[in-house]
Amino acid sequence: MSGLLSGTLSVINVGLNSFADAIAANSGTVTRVQWEPPGGEPAAARAVALLAGRKQVDQANQAAFERYIAAEPVIEGIALAREVIPRMGERTLLHSGPPLPWARMGGTLQGAAVGAILLEGWARDAEAARAMAERGEIALGSCHEHDAVGPMAGVTSPSMPVWIVRNRTHGNRAFCNLNEGLGKVLRYGANGPEVIERLKWMGRVLGPTLEKTLIGRGPIALKPLMARALQMGDEMHNRNAAASALLFKQLAPGLLRAEVPGGTAAEVLEFINGNDHFFLNVAMAACKAMLEAAAGVEASSMVVVMARNGTEFGIRLSGTGSRWFTATAPYLDGLFFAGYSKADASRDIGDSAITETAGLGGFAMAAAPAIVQFVGGTPRQAVENTLAMGHITVGSHPAFTIPALDFRGVPAGIDARKVVDRRILPIINSGIAHREAGIGQIGAGITNAPMACFSQAIVALAQQLESQDRESASGGAEAMAGR
Amino acid sequence: MSGLLSGTLSVINVGLNSFADAIAANSGTVTRVQWEPPGGEPAAARAVALLAGRKQVDQANQAAFERYIAAEPVIEGIALAREVIPRMGERTLLHSGPPLPWARMGGTLQGAAVGAILLEGWARDAEAARAMAERGEIALGSCHEHDAVGPMAGVTSPSMPVWIVRNRTHGNRAFCNLNEGLGKVLRYGANGPEVIERLKWMGRVLGPTLEKTLIGRGPIALKPLMARALQMGDEMHNRNAAASALLFKQLAPGLLRAEVPGGTAAEVLEFINGNDHFFLNVAMAACKAMLEAAAGVEASSMVVVMARNGTEFGIRLSGTGSRWFTATAPYLDGLFFAGYSKADASRDIGDSAITETAGLGGFAMAAAPAIVQFVGGTPRQAVENTLAMGHITVGSHPAFTIPALDFRGVPAGIDARKVVDRRILPIINSGIAHREAGIGQIGAGITNAPMACFSQAIVALAQQLESQDRESASGGAEAMAGR
Repeated sequence: MSGLLSGTLSVINVGLNSFADAIAANSGTVTRVQWEPPGGEPAAARAVALLAGRKQVDQANQAAFERYIAAEPVIEGIALAREVIPRMGERTLLHSGPPLPWARMGGTLQGAAVGAILLEGWARDAEAARAMAERGEIALGSCHEHDAVGPMAGVTSPSMPVWIVRNRTHGNRAFCNLNEGLGKVLRYGANGPEVIERLKWMGRVLGPTLEKTLIGRGPIALKPLMARALQMGDEMHNRNAAASALLFKQLAPGLLRAEVPGGTAAEVLEFINGNDHFFLNVAMAACKAMLEAAAGVEASSMVVVMARNGTEFGIRLSGTGSRWFTATAPYLDGLFFAGYSKADASRDIGDSAITETAGLGGFAMAAAPAIVQFVGGTPRQAVENTLAMGHITVGSHPAFTIPALDFRGVPAGIDARKVVDRRILPIINSGIAHREAGIGQIGAGITNAPMACFSQAIVALAQQLESQDRESASGGAEAMAGR
Repeated sequence: MSGLLSGTLSVINVGLNSFADAIAANSGTVTRVQWEPPGGEPAAARAVALLAGRKQVDQANQAAFERYIAAEPVIEGIALAREVIPRMGERTLLHSGPPLPWARMGGTLQGAAVGAILLEGWARDAEAARAMAERGEIALGSCHEHDAVGPMAGVTSPSMPVWIVRNRTHGNRAFCNLNEGLGKVLRYGANGPEVIERLKWMGRVLGPTLEKTLIGRGPIALKPLMARALQMGDEMHNRNAAASALLFKQLAPGLLRAEVPGGTAAEVLEFINGNDHFFLNVAMAACKAMLEAAAGVEASSMVVVMARNGTEFGIRLSGTGSRWFTATAPYLDGLFFAGYSKADASRDIGDSAITETAGLGGFAMAAAPAIVQFVGGTPRQAVENTLAMGHITVGSHPAFTIPALDFRGVPAGIDARKVVDRRILPIINSGIAHREAGIGQIGAGITNAPMACFSQAIVALAQQLESQDRESASGGAEAMAGR
């Protein structure tokens, strides 16, 4: 020891810089190694420690998870957004992700909003539409705050037809507009005449025809359909080929029995036929309906919403009510259409991460090895992604099984505590939109949900539980004093 | 050496018993170990050795394989069997597998034949039908000898509608009847009133409606459809869920445009919709069309037919023309419907092994892990089966890829030489019929093609090539003598 203290000090400092600073100030040689304890920033680490030891949270997560598992989503029908979406006023546009003012919206979202204003006929041209939005003449709202979800920009305007998905077990409903196809489409920020024309046809022909078909044939149970699609290579976010075909099979005979002119029926079937992503919006509404059943369980750290608006990524926990925990939305790594690159891309956008929140999409990639041709990577990585997600989830879904993994259920019910503690981030498959308004889709790829959302969320949950502890302690003390 | 010869001999004899007999006759102790050299029986071993070293065979197999790969099967239409199947006479029934007289047919095949006689109205009741067949008043023929294939019993009678599949590359056509669904159906040997009624409806409504639909919409390309289905978890023998859905999507809009009454169209779509095996018969015709293109290449040891009639298993090689090489058909291991067991099962039956001959079915199980719920085994075994088949095939199909195996093509084009030399038998997924007439399907499972078919085939091919060698040698000698 005396030799150590009398000689020249040469120190390696791991972690907090203040220790190294003290040595440097006393003329010591110090090598600084960056390191932080598991759990990330101190507040989050403290919250993880507090919540990890808390049986109440485990029990709450189990309760939330069981509600999610028990949910039975069915397609109940189709109606216009303004007729069924709760609290949707006149001149309102809903959008994906957490709420965001016009000025902070990126080009993709603004482009889609301009298109929707034109579709609704609130403005004569794109310039006038943009001016209206800038003057605050259009009410803006987050889909999720209206029991709705929307892919990519997620812009949903009053006259758009929407799927009505009912959770038969708990009675709640969720809504999503109809899928337009790929490429130059509103949800990717395109708003040219062909985009508006297609949306008008969807409102005039597609919506009413499917509405009539569903009235005739009755509800379509989605859990068995989605379970089958998962066994047929879909993960139901970026790959919906099987689910779209299975839905098509359910709709076609009913369409023939509905009294629709043959030409119209054929036109509708061909539109659905030509779009392997047609089921995406149904899957999203189903996932929203299942997860909404798991929301509002006190003390639960289970994630019930992950959503992005192209500017921010936001999550909600079951136990923290309507509060959003947000961070800057990431970019995606993936495959770009010819002529485009990452420099052209919008930040991550869309409510479609509700599929990952429900254990599908990136969480179920092992079921869909063919998807790597669309989003990049290898079949082995697809399997690894699913296995990794098993480390941050409450359980696995008994109905949604993956044949190639010996019929193991998809990992589902993200536990925000595990994300922060294990530093494993949720994987999301998604489409990539052009960053500028009016262009559309430029690729597809993979990204991760940002850590900051989860660390904020568990800090908030820990504070909430601590303040309850204090209240019950002081309540106990008051009760004692009152004797 | 002297010690060895003077002491008491204690010998282990491996292989031929005549050596052991000599030792035993001289009071030696001998342990007999059964063994045979690679290649099995001596004639087959000799043939393997002869053919292995023969470049002509490699080149012939490559040529046959390339013709198979280049084939482009399309659904050309639907017609009655008697209108399109070549050389199909009056009062003729075609059946699966190699040709077989009535007396040697098992219960499944006889049951189906009786049903077809009733369908055609050639006899008033089952007893009369059976008597007619016994008296030889019905001409019997093998489907394969008429460019046709039929699943299970494969019984095809003149008034049945059949798929017409054309190989657009080489111009040949193949035929297969329409799938009736599962359970109590003709192809599994059932022949009750509900079976005949369904077949009559198929002839009166289903066939003509689909015929009309196809005339309106034009041919359906099958290779891209089958390639997609393989990426969606089908192996197209016992699992056709995706392919059936994809075919349904191709047919439905055309059906709406064809001038068919709405009720009829809905009835047809619901029938197809309710049968996930509907595509099987199309897949079989497509495989037959592709493999027929590879037939008739001199000196090729590539297998172009594997087929079973419930009594015999038969194969044909590309290089040995119309000759069948047969052995007793095996039983299947698998999963049985409640109340049935292996004791109730027919021997392996059906032309559906044409799918395995084309690299699908058991050869493509790695693409269809969910199939193990139907035929037994584990997802890992499914992968191992596909990998094993890679050791007995000429190549892999570039269009039929398996995502989970890094998009490797299915192993295709069985080389009979490799089967005998490596003692790896082709794996076949199949349905299991009740052994008695009139009952129907009782399960599904897996079996192997019998070795004897392949050893006979290569002995015949070797003899053929040797006799050609002799002829050309003596031809050469005669030419010399004639100078």
